[in-house]
Amino acid sequence: VDAVNRQFRLAARPQGMVGAEHFDLVQEPLPEPAEGQVLVKTLYISLDPAMRGWMSEGRSYVPPVGIGEVMRAGTVGRVIESRSERLEVGDHVSSWLGVQEYAVADADGLLKVDTRLASLPTYLGALGMPGMTAYFGLLDIGKPEPGQTVVVSAGAGAVGSVVGQIAKLKGCRVVGIAGGSEKCSWIADELGFDAAIDYKTEDVAQELRKHCPEGIDVYFDNVGGEILDAALARLARHARVVICGAVSQYNNIDSMRGPSNYMSLLVNRARMEGFVVIDYMGRYAEALPEMAGWIAEGKLHAREDVVEGFEQFPDALVRLFKGENVGKLVLRLTDDN
Amino acid sequence: VDAVNRQFRLAARPQGMVGAEHFDLVQEPLPEPAEGQVLVKTLYISLDPAMRGWMSEGRSYVPPVGIGEVMRAGTVGRVIESRSERLEVGDHVSSWLGVQEYAVADADGLLKVDTRLASLPTYLGALGMPGMTAYFGLLDIGKPEPGQTVVVSAGAGAVGSVVGQIAKLKGCRVVGIAGGSEKCSWIADELGFDAAIDYKTEDVAQELRKHCPEGIDVYFDNVGGEILDAALARLARHARVVICGAVSQYNNIDSMRGPSNYMSLLVNRARMEGFVVIDYMGRYAEALPEMAGWIAEGKLHAREDVVEGFEQFPDALVRLFKGENVGKLVLRLTDDN
Repeated sequence: VDAVNRQFRLAARPQGMVGAEHFDLVQEPLPEPAEGQVLVKTLYISLDPAMRGWMSEGRSYVPPVGIGEVMRAGTVGRVIESRSERLEVGDHVSSWLGVQEYAVADADGLLKVDTRLASLPTYLGALGMPGMTAYFGLLDIGKPEPGQTVVVSAGAGAVGSVVGQIAKLKGCRVVGIAGGSEKCSWIADELGFDAAIDYKTEDVAQELRKHCPEGIDVYFDNVGGEILDAALARLARHARVVICGAVSQYNNIDSMRGPSNYMSLLVNRARMEGFVVIDYMGRYAEALPEMAGWIAEGKLHAREDVVEGFEQFPDALVRLFKGENVGKLVLRLTDDN
Repeated sequence: VDAVNRQFRLAARPQGMVGAEHFDLVQEPLPEPAEGQVLVKTLYISLDPAMRGWMSEGRSYVPPVGIGEVMRAGTVGRVIESRSERLEVGDHVSSWLGVQEYAVADADGLLKVDTRLASLPTYLGALGMPGMTAYFGLLDIGKPEPGQTVVVSAGAGAVGSVVGQIAKLKGCRVVGIAGGSEKCSWIADELGFDAAIDYKTEDVAQELRKHCPEGIDVYFDNVGGEILDAALARLARHARVVICGAVSQYNNIDSMRGPSNYMSLLVNRARMEGFVVIDYMGRYAEALPEMAGWIAEGKLHAREDVVEGFEQFPDALVRLFKGENVGKLVLRLTDDN
């Protein structure tokens, strides 16, 4: 066990693009678990678009991270010291222990994970918050019917790649929008999307007309901006637009760009609805067995993009917002003890 | 009976604000009814924000009016010649006979109206398309619950004034947004809205914070633009935003302004939904007796803003888009025969 616990703490609130200058790398003595608590060594840290929002002030669905506080993050780790009957040394747990190498936590607040069912980073991806976001956002808000057309932006991302695969499993025609040929061939050739649109080299509006001849029934939006407008322009009658995120706008130093084609909602009697996955926490137990089953049967491909090394955290976060990851982006900490 | 039929025909498609230059006033011989048809003398012509959309090209929920065609409009009139068993000379009918003094129509396509229940212009307002828009938009899309807060923009308009009154009848707290002190005192003092916000002299965002301390549960939007953004910023959890129109944007020569606060839908797990009243035509028979009953009992005030004279049509339409009318704007044709 190391003598110290390294942590990334929020140093400053970004105005535009996030960068290394917004974090301080600090060292603390290893914390000691009290009765009922465990000491967890972090093995993987989740990098999520939502982090950009947590770094800013202002009303949102969770409070912002305070200046000087350890950056919030989902994690999986191993229990290395236990003062609880609930968990043993060696157990793997997922939780929100933040961007740090070790953490003490109440055993009751930790979810024990089974590494025989899926690999550890998958518990931050398809079986974690992104997977639950895809599952409930698509099925509960998007309500796709077999035969309908589902379009998903950031289609090669942690959420989008799962949205598209679940939509295929439910009998839909699926079009993914992603940036670059590697991502597009992954979702079309390996994940089985019916079509992929490369927004970096193709005209999204024109490709949507081509690939969605009868319009879009469900549009699952992770990006906002021009792509949201292009999708709105192509809605089918009674379409559902699921607002999951707006990653194209999070680092926008000017004000947010609103969807200028929103009146398509009126013309097409369509609906645009936002949701926050934490509202579904009480129903994760419905989704997890189904998702784990699909993974085990090879029907749902979970892919993680793994960056090595705790100190790479700020650079990895920049990579996320530049859209350079394919699949779920996670940071892997060295596990040498 | 006059020897001629005057008509306003669409002369050009407006780019920005609509004006007299977009119409031609022409004269035609009086048309003759064929078997099964009637000749109707127009008594009132409805002026509606939707007219701006009908004058433009592009995909919408109804086809645009063609250049050279009689401008589309809702009308009420009197049968002056009948070749149908269904209607007699002297019967009053409502329909879509356009901006002209006379029209021939199939008797089957005309709705006979009862002038004992309500005055003729009310059949273009509270008992016409605006009233049906208010009724189904509020109750079917907005789904207000007793005790909830309903906010309506263009609150002194043909639709908004009815939305607010129905919401009060359903036990809601109602805040109307309107332009000018006359409109605001009408909706607050005479229609019983709980508060009125004058967007011309008050800070709408600040007043919404004051009058909606627990947020907005239903926002019924007729205007778009900055007011929509101010309302989005103040949504309550699980709010419903009803998109009925965007009158602030219809004459916008630049591109449409999208709601930059749309991510409030995510933060508040809220929904924004558009609708088109013609979809509810099959259910007007549900709404009309209830609405007519409320009017008869004095619980729903129908107010029309009447402009006199057929030739005033273009100026009256400009008045509508300048927001100068209070209540339903109609054109009254002289009835000297």
